[in-house]
Amino acid sequence: MGEALRFEILHRCPGSAARVGRVTTAHGEFDTPAFMAVGTRASVKGLSVDHIAATGTQVVLNNTYHLMLRPGEGTIQRAGGAHRFMGWPGPILTDSGGYQAYSMADLNDIDDDGVTFRSIVDGSKIRLTPERSIAVQNAIGADIIMAFDDCPPSVDPEAGPTNQTRIRIAARRDADRGRGYDHATRLAVANERTVRWLERCRAAHARPGEQALFGIVQGGTDPAARAWCAERVCNIDLPGYAIGGVAVGEPHEQIAAVTAHTARLLPEGKPRYLMGVGYERDLVAAVLAGVDMFDCVLPTRNARNAQAFTRAGPLRLRNAAHGEDFGPVEAGCGCPACDPAGHGWLTPGGGRFSRAYIRHLFMAGEMLGPILLSLHNLWHFQRLMLDIRRAIAEDDWPRFAREWPRAAVAIPVGSRTAIPPRGGDACNE
Amino acid sequence: MGEALRFEILHRCPGSAARVGRVTTAHGEFDTPAFMAVGTRASVKGLSVDHIAATGTQVVLNNTYHLMLRPGEGTIQRAGGAHRFMGWPGPILTDSGGYQAYSMADLNDIDDDGVTFRSIVDGSKIRLTPERSIAVQNAIGADIIMAFDDCPPSVDPEAGPTNQTRIRIAARRDADRGRGYDHATRLAVANERTVRWLERCRAAHARPGEQALFGIVQGGTDPAARAWCAERVCNIDLPGYAIGGVAVGEPHEQIAAVTAHTARLLPEGKPRYLMGVGYERDLVAAVLAGVDMFDCVLPTRNARNAQAFTRAGPLRLRNAAHGEDFGPVEAGCGCPACDPAGHGWLTPGGGRFSRAYIRHLFMAGEMLGPILLSLHNLWHFQRLMLDIRRAIAEDDWPRFAREWPRAAVAIPVGSRTAIPPRGGDACNE
Repeated sequence: MGEALRFEILHRCPGSAARVGRVTTAHGEFDTPAFMAVGTRASVKGLSVDHIAATGTQVVLNNTYHLMLRPGEGTIQRAGGAHRFMGWPGPILTDSGGYQAYSMADLNDIDDDGVTFRSIVDGSKIRLTPERSIAVQNAIGADIIMAFDDCPPSVDPEAGPTNQTRIRIAARRDADRGRGYDHATRLAVANERTVRWLERCRAAHARPGEQALFGIVQGGTDPAARAWCAERVCNIDLPGYAIGGVAVGEPHEQIAAVTAHTARLLPEGKPRYLMGVGYERDLVAAVLAGVDMFDCVLPTRNARNAQAFTRAGPLRLRNAAHGEDFGPVEAGCGCPACDPAGHGWLTPGGGRFSRAYIRHLFMAGEMLGPILLSLHNLWHFQRLMLDIRRAIAEDDWPRFAREWPRAAVAIPVGSRTAIPPRGGDACNE
Repeated sequence: MGEALRFEILHRCPGSAARVGRVTTAHGEFDTPAFMAVGTRASVKGLSVDHIAATGTQVVLNNTYHLMLRPGEGTIQRAGGAHRFMGWPGPILTDSGGYQAYSMADLNDIDDDGVTFRSIVDGSKIRLTPERSIAVQNAIGADIIMAFDDCPPSVDPEAGPTNQTRIRIAARRDADRGRGYDHATRLAVANERTVRWLERCRAAHARPGEQALFGIVQGGTDPAARAWCAERVCNIDLPGYAIGGVAVGEPHEQIAAVTAHTARLLPEGKPRYLMGVGYERDLVAAVLAGVDMFDCVLPTRNARNAQAFTRAGPLRLRNAAHGEDFGPVEAGCGCPACDPAGHGWLTPGGGRFSRAYIRHLFMAGEMLGPILLSLHNLWHFQRLMLDIRRAIAEDDWPRFAREWPRAAVAIPVGSRTAIPPRGGDACNE
């Protein structure tokens, strides 16, 4: 194994665990730290592949759960794989489908062998096991595939401030089946399954020379459970490792703490992937902890709800205040929706499309509203990653903090990565 | 008047009234015969302006009725006009809002001065008169603006196979207000109003040097009524003239007959615009009758319903037959959805995106399905117009008929524009 993926670390931040690198796959390279655009059903919602590329996106995530149900992995395989099916020539990653099987199905049963759930497409009964998940991912043909794991509630479902209702229900059903698990026991069971299932995933993986299988570390918010899982998962030699079960309802500080604790338990020379995270400051905190890869639906999902990400914070474009606001979503932004460069065209506010126009599109229910904001938001996240990579490569976090003040709150003041009060280079001490 | 628009005829078909020309406006040129993409609410549904341009579209239509209700013409004016508001630097045309006021409002009253209707946005009572329509269009700032006319039912509402329920209701309400109009009287009343209102439109037009006002000929399917209206409308010197009230439920043959009858009554040296038409063969028939401009929602509306236009006829992409169909929507098509050129990428079927993928997008409810089919369908119509212009310029209708067999059924066999049975040049006799 290992042929399917090469990871080079090009520069290390002397003041933190952050590093700039490059991942090479069978379908090209991507720079790390990387933000993957989520294309659940083999489509990044609202964006053509040209538009995806125009945001600076280098790698796309597809969801195994959704694609196995519709159109079915066989169709994608016969289409020549996910890349040809969706017309995206660059790197693709698929998740294992486990998380969705637990969290989206109204009915599911978890046991030591796998998960049974009802299809959200046609109600039929579906069985997902480590072997089946890998077979589906082998058929879909992504460059990076993920282990099938057991993702327990991150916090005690009886006590925690989580909104994971369905995971909670599933966990309780698991408990109800005569086992009487408390939360700690549920975490331990999930951890044991996650390790056993990873062995089965590796054994079942039929294309290790083309597709890189990543293991996933679970363990909720319990440091000891994370350590137990990380040790056993990393004992299995794989081209990369992920941190799962994070950012499912916890506050930023807890996300950062669990991530920092777990990331340092993963091998230094392999890419580390924090699944499903997150807001800008979550990304910065994770990068400082040594994480290399991210995915999150925030840019596209919030775009569909008329929310724009900006360096100064979120903007709700439906607000009446934007009705006559002829400036761009974000002044100085280089995205295809804000930047008039190359288009020879300016709004009175100096941008390409105005807030007033985008607000109008949302008020009128025009598809173009979500399209333009998805372009902007995905650009925002890719630009953030580019500036993070530059901050690491140039050892210049103070500049990053000036340009991304809200994201930079994740940089701990007074630590080795702190921004000195009067300038200077935090990473270069 | 006339400064706002220049029309050059570059080539005339010797065997028909068809001609190739060029219209020059304050925002650039477009080639005729031209197909205008419909951007009702200042957005061609699902397409960014880059995508619109990529389909070969040169001129876009906006709807006065929709834009005056939302966001309001004042907002568009303060944004710098429709071009800057929607980011489309090329020519734009606005309709007058009359047709929508009659046909879309649940409540409306037509009288000799104008129309009163309830807003579909907030239910408020709106009054539209010739003066108000022109004021709104002056504020929106399109390059070509349309007269506010009275569009009666094209056929006798008591007898006809029309689906114009609301227009029928409006007509009946008009009749109910003590006048007792029969269909012929209603046509006559509409014609008289259309002529009187056109005079008022011209008098109210505040920007004749920048915006070209087109008159509209009504008269339903009655040749005498058409002739009466055409004579009076064309007595008013304007930069262009339109044929209104066509293709509101009639069969192809009647559309062609009314168009041919009316087009020859319009001045030869000015652009002729057939409003709201239509299918490919309707366009060809109208071009042969000397029409220069078209608009229709068919390419984008049908795209949203998963229907693709192809030279061989329509294709319903939701059909299960396309589930494993890895060829492009149309083999040989140069559109951004079908053509792999420049993308270095091929489906197993040799195209860029496969029918199977686009079907999947529709089945999964992904926005990208309508986006890709809108690109294809609009390209299809623009390619048709390009090939029509080439057929005229090169006097080669037989080649056109080979390449567009379904559209070419509109070319009358045995007439001067006929395709000789064994080849030869129909236009070059």
